[in-house]
Amino acid sequence: MAAEFYLGADIGGTGVKYIITDDQGGIFHQGEVPTDPHSAKRTLGRLAMEVAERISPPSDSDEATFFRLAAVGLACAGIINPASGHLGRSPNLPGWEDTNLKRIIANEFQDKPSVVANDVNAALFGEFSFGAGRGCRNLVMIALGTGVGGGIMLDGALVVGTHNGAAEIGHMVLDPSGPTCTCGGVGCLEAWAGSVAILKQARLLAKVELKETALAQLVLEKGEHLSTRDLSLLAEQGDAASLALFAEVGHRLGHAVGNLVNILDPDRVIIGGGVAQAGDLILGSCRALVPAMVLAEEAKDIPIVSAELGPMSAAVGAACLARQEQAGG
Amino acid sequence: MAAEFYLGADIGGTGVKYIITDDQGGIFHQGEVPTDPHSAKRTLGRLAMEVAERISPPSDSDEATFFRLAAVGLACAGIINPASGHLGRSPNLPGWEDTNLKRIIANEFQDKPSVVANDVNAALFGEFSFGAGRGCRNLVMIALGTGVGGGIMLDGALVVGTHNGAAEIGHMVLDPSGPTCTCGGVGCLEAWAGSVAILKQARLLAKVELKETALAQLVLEKGEHLSTRDLSLLAEQGDAASLALFAEVGHRLGHAVGNLVNILDPDRVIIGGGVAQAGDLILGSCRALVPAMVLAEEAKDIPIVSAELGPMSAAVGAACLARQEQAGG
Repeated sequence: MAAEFYLGADIGGTGVKYIITDDQGGIFHQGEVPTDPHSAKRTLGRLAMEVAERISPPSDSDEATFFRLAAVGLACAGIINPASGHLGRSPNLPGWEDTNLKRIIANEFQDKPSVVANDVNAALFGEFSFGAGRGCRNLVMIALGTGVGGGIMLDGALVVGTHNGAAEIGHMVLDPSGPTCTCGGVGCLEAWAGSVAILKQARLLAKVELKETALAQLVLEKGEHLSTRDLSLLAEQGDAASLALFAEVGHRLGHAVGNLVNILDPDRVIIGGGVAQAGDLILGSCRALVPAMVLAEEAKDIPIVSAELGPMSAAVGAACLARQEQAGG
Repeated sequence: MAAEFYLGADIGGTGVKYIITDDQGGIFHQGEVPTDPHSAKRTLGRLAMEVAERISPPSDSDEATFFRLAAVGLACAGIINPASGHLGRSPNLPGWEDTNLKRIIANEFQDKPSVVANDVNAALFGEFSFGAGRGCRNLVMIALGTGVGGGIMLDGALVVGTHNGAAEIGHMVLDPSGPTCTCGGVGCLEAWAGSVAILKQARLLAKVELKETALAQLVLEKGEHLSTRDLSLLAEQGDAASLALFAEVGHRLGHAVGNLVNILDPDRVIIGGGVAQAGDLILGSCRALVPAMVLAEEAKDIPIVSAELGPMSAAVGAACLARQEQAGG
């Protein structure tokens, strides 16, 4: 009996989430190894060892079972050239910048075929394959994390652009008099809807306007450990200030979604990332704004849905991309 | 000898510009027939008669020459379903709304194969085939006319979207506190960069702020016949107010282009339409803004170029689309 496996791995700033799937896409194993921020080679070497252990045939097996890793898919934040495997700008892992990930995979995984993709593109491909985008051909994904990432699929193919710079949705400028963004620009979506921006705004509200409120108490109590999850729990208890904060995030997100629907007119828009766990606190005001912005009558009721695959989505998508690559594109 | 011809026609509010090309794309004839705003059937019937006359073999011909119309391409403003040929929302020709253009072409042109496309999509395909987009695969076109239209091409194919509502670039909202747009929205690109908006702004400047200026004199003198061409001539003479007006148009256009490059990362961006004849008066400030907005290093110096085919671009593109359709897509 032969068993073929596909590895999908999502390189994060501190850990590499990985998943091993069988040739039907079923999950065989999932796990995590630490990221070495200074060395892609050491990180992927460690991953290769762990994967090799997992897919070795059990030592007590009598059958002539043949376990084989067929292909490797890697997802990573930053500007990635999927053809060459080159990683350019890499905000989460500056120590990995300007390396050829395909070459390192070839070295560490005995020349297995590989595919590398931007992490949100991989997550979108995962949602397309097994999640909120099943059955669709044209999709937009917005990932609300520390920053805001994006992915675009047209007719079943990820759009990477001429210089691999497409789908930088987080840096769509929504208001030239808006807040300063981490990119140096002004009024980008990320300057409202990334967790860095949301926490900054919460602290500002606590300090300047709402000294006596529940929000101010929360900010004081949590200090540096304040999370968007803390804020959403407070909002769910009915706290007006944090409700308004998430509604503003959703409104700005809706502005970006409205623009994207007028530009791309997809089947649906998927909202993912950790911040999106606030769910309807954000999606409510987002969905309220979009129809009035969209020109094409039939596109006004575009479904704006939550991602379904959670934190493993990029690893799942990377494994799916590896399987597609192996099947000949 | 057999000669095969392709008809490309661009339906305008008052006239139908058309072009007849040979099977190499060479121009055999071009002309214009009036548009009947109440009847697509009468308009296309008249066009069919005129085209039939043009491609009849000369009566004194001794040769057994066979002149044949091989396919028809039609370009029209509005929301068009290229598969069915249905014209939905049609701002320039409300009397044509909700008609099936492919069926009317079949009736009036003896069941010739046909293709229908949004006018800016057709113009983009023309520029891709013979103009400013030659040799490219990924293109964005922005047409600055009365309103502002858009076209998007990825990997050599026009992007129409799930509900044929894509590339409505004129209604990208750039500033939620911007001027009101004809679409009912606020702060759309069109509310700055369409000729309606530019002329409105010129009249406002003349009335409110600059009573004694050359701009005020021009507005008074031209009255209702004021055109963006008049304003650009004044700007070219060094008039500060009209220079600033075009610089503002270019700056807002640059904001839209910057967003589009971050979303789509095309090979180049083509600026067309009558207003774009102002050339560097607009493109100067547009090009000045874009690099700072674009994230991907290699995409920062994206060429932002003027369209090359002029007022016949949509007719040319429609003929090219017809030829491609005939060749089997």
